Amino acid sequence: MRAVDIIAKKRDGHELTDAEIEWFIQHYTDDTIPDYQAAAWAMAVFFRGMTPRETATLTRAMAHSGAVLDLHHIAPRTVDKHSSGGVGDKTTLVVGPLVAASGLPVAKMSGRGLSFTGGTLDKLESIPGFRVGLTHEEFMRQVAEIGLVVAGQTADLAPADGKLYALRDATATVDSIPLIASSIMSKKLAGGADAIVLDVKVGNGAFMQTLEAARELATLMVEIGVRNGRDMTALISDMNQPLGAAVGNAVEVQEAIETLQGNGPRDFTEHCLTVAAHMLLLGEKAETFDAAYALAEDFLRTGKALEKFKQMVAAQGGDVRVVETPATILPQAPIKAVVQAPQAGYIAGIKARDVGMAVVLLGGGREKKGDPIDHAVGVLVHHKVGDFVERGEPLFTILARTEEQIAPTQERLLATLSWSDTPVEPLPLFYDTIQARASA
Amino acid sequence: MRAVDIIAKKRDGHELTDAEIEWFIQHYTDDTIPDYQAAAWAMAVFFRGMTPRETATLTRAMAHSGAVLDLHHIAPRTVDKHSSGGVGDKTTLVVGPLVAASGLPVAKMSGRGLSFTGGTLDKLESIPGFRVGLTHEEFMRQVAEIGLVVAGQTADLAPADGKLYALRDATATVDSIPLIASSIMSKKLAGGADAIVLDVKVGNGAFMQTLEAARELATLMVEIGVRNGRDMTALISDMNQPLGAAVGNAVEVQEAIETLQGNGPRDFTEHCLTVAAHMLLLGEKAETFDAAYALAEDFLRTGKALEKFKQMVAAQGGDVRVVETPATILPQAPIKAVVQAPQAGYIAGIKARDVGMAVVLLGGGREKKGDPIDHAVGVLVHHKVGDFVERGEPLFTILARTEEQIAPTQERLLATLSWSDTPVEPLPLFYDTIQARASA
Repeated sequence: MRAVDIIAKKRDGHELTDAEIEWFIQHYTDDTIPDYQAAAWAMAVFFRGMTPRETATLTRAMAHSGAVLDLHHIAPRTVDKHSSGGVGDKTTLVVGPLVAASGLPVAKMSGRGLSFTGGTLDKLESIPGFRVGLTHEEFMRQVAEIGLVVAGQTADLAPADGKLYALRDATATVDSIPLIASSIMSKKLAGGADAIVLDVKVGNGAFMQTLEAARELATLMVEIGVRNGRDMTALISDMNQPLGAAVGNAVEVQEAIETLQGNGPRDFTEHCLTVAAHMLLLGEKAETFDAAYALAEDFLRTGKALEKFKQMVAAQGGDVRVVETPATILPQAPIKAVVQAPQAGYIAGIKARDVGMAVVLLGGGREKKGDPIDHAVGVLVHHKVGDFVERGEPLFTILARTEEQIAPTQERLLATLSWSDTPVEPLPLFYDTIQARASA
Repeated sequence: MRAVDIIAKKRDGHELTDAEIEWFIQHYTDDTIPDYQAAAWAMAVFFRGMTPRETATLTRAMAHSGAVLDLHHIAPRTVDKHSSGGVGDKTTLVVGPLVAASGLPVAKMSGRGLSFTGGTLDKLESIPGFRVGLTHEEFMRQVAEIGLVVAGQTADLAPADGKLYALRDATATVDSIPLIASSIMSKKLAGGADAIVLDVKVGNGAFMQTLEAARELATLMVEIGVRNGRDMTALISDMNQPLGAAVGNAVEVQEAIETLQGNGPRDFTEHCLTVAAHMLLLGEKAETFDAAYALAEDFLRTGKALEKFKQMVAAQGGDVRVVETPATILPQAPIKAVVQAPQAGYIAGIKARDVGMAVVLLGGGREKKGDPIDHAVGVLVHHKVGDFVERGEPLFTILARTEEQIAPTQERLLATLSWSDTPVEPLPLFYDTIQARASA
């Protein structure tokens, strides 16, 4: 085989064989296919697309380019989750404990925040002493002992994806649905779970801006999973406003703990229970979705999920007092300022992406990889789309490092809102659920 | 500027500015833009195309990436020519002397053969002693002294094109009309001529297979030239059968000399006179095309063109006796075999590309760059499309190195022919002429 022939075949709109895709990825991984040929191929894929069969093969080839985890010595069945990223999305911090409380092991490798989206690792590092950089042995021991671990990548999962993603970032070939789907799913396949719940966010605070694009991505990822022997559920969830009230790092951990205590925001609590229920259902801990949802509610009400969270904090070196009194343990912003409503009216829209960027500009996120972040800063969003607000009512609380940050942040936050004089429908939490089982 | 933004802009179908194109080529040439970004950009151009303005700017940027010749100290006006390549195309060997005989300097940098097409340098090296590897000083001195030189590239003309062409070859981005046009024209612009005649071949023995594609390429190259201040004529000429009778190296030199002696094949002679007349017209040696054509005929009839060829052979170290008795000076193939017509009928088609490949397989051409070639081997094609041939009449003469080559070559050559029982129209020499003057 010759790389140039494979590029030309894709360029001309033909379907690549499994052997061609596997050969290309194998030789790209071992550096015998140079970056320039992979770049031309990626641009040809951008224009010509890939069939689900091609995409599933690409995903499998990337998944097998490095280590592949196997957790079957710990439990007969494991379930993983992935969120496509949004603003105020601290779901893993609540869903992990909820699912682990059932005995289903949750071994989650998470990432860091970039641009308007936060990252689970950054949030967890708000807890004094908490270590996200575990060795592979520590990671495996913790999941075996307490059934819950959330850490950075501990093994070289899907190195072909890492290499290709960096190349795509430099060659304007990121925005391709098959390449996005295979990138996400390659790491999930390498993670070794039998079933996967995908939380695909759509809206002004998500990478997918339209329901159509989100559904296309979700459907393709479900098909990739099923073609590789996984049971799959993809939820398409709203990201046209921040999820919950808290946006930041420490403040999101605090909200997650409050949620595990039973005092979380209604929307975020329901979101977490729904995601957890789908995981419990795929993990065969319940017969029906309703039974799985009730089980998750039970773990919340009885404090079992909170206890699991506490075990994880302890195992990873964090200060466990955070579970009882988060506000006294987590870093606090020195300056707090309430933004009041400049008018009365119904809230018609909140640009979640711009709320996320306001937190980045406070120092709570990264404009580029490797930037340091300030865990204490953030924003609380006190209202949801559809709420009626009186003039002077609190809209946001700004958690800032300096006084100088207040005025520009207030201006940015007010600009995220649109108003209506007439009632506005609240936004749904979910738009669609796409499910398919390899085992069916 | 960032390369990734320029790639994305082209990917999304937008027109690049002059500044963006110049910046991209400048930084690709100095290695600050890596090959993988240039490859993604080239693939985006493959899909999105470029406007004539963008293509003209790209061409100029590549032309100015290295040395640019200036021959104005030798003559007030210079004319260059370029052929897009074909089978039996020894035009430069005749047109160069025809034009130089008028006093217009001809300083031609030529190339080597690859695949089914021959190369002027390989042909000239059939002449014992002939040197094509001149220094830049030798090249410039010869054009000043005798007004005619044909050699390999003596200066680093359009290095950006050389680099980009090698990349395109490895990334399946060769077949893009704007990239083909800019590649050809960048070297012509760097060559410094005031006017350029392009011989764009179309047919089964050319890179352009359809008249539509050839016309698109020719029109674009004319526009590139005019936008860069050149007077342009593009001829679209037939390559659905070999040009002249001889295909090979020594045998093509012999046919070129016979043509300069006034004894060349009718089609090839007329082709050369037409190309030369267009060059003489652009070089302002005649007022009308007919007057220019008559002038070229004159240089042929009086032997002035042959004398100019002889001066060039002498200046470049070749055995000048080749001009009187080419057959005794040029290397001869040890085995000659005539292929007779297996049937009577009209010749309806001759696949020129396959005739070219038959010569490559005899050793007279290259399958890949750097392969050695056998100058003595070749094929003589005794008939043209439209000819009526009796059974047993000679169709081809094979000039081979070994007896074993005869049978397979005969089979290949017979397979290039298609036959008809009813009369067939001869093929035209030219399909179209596209002209435009920057000075108009």
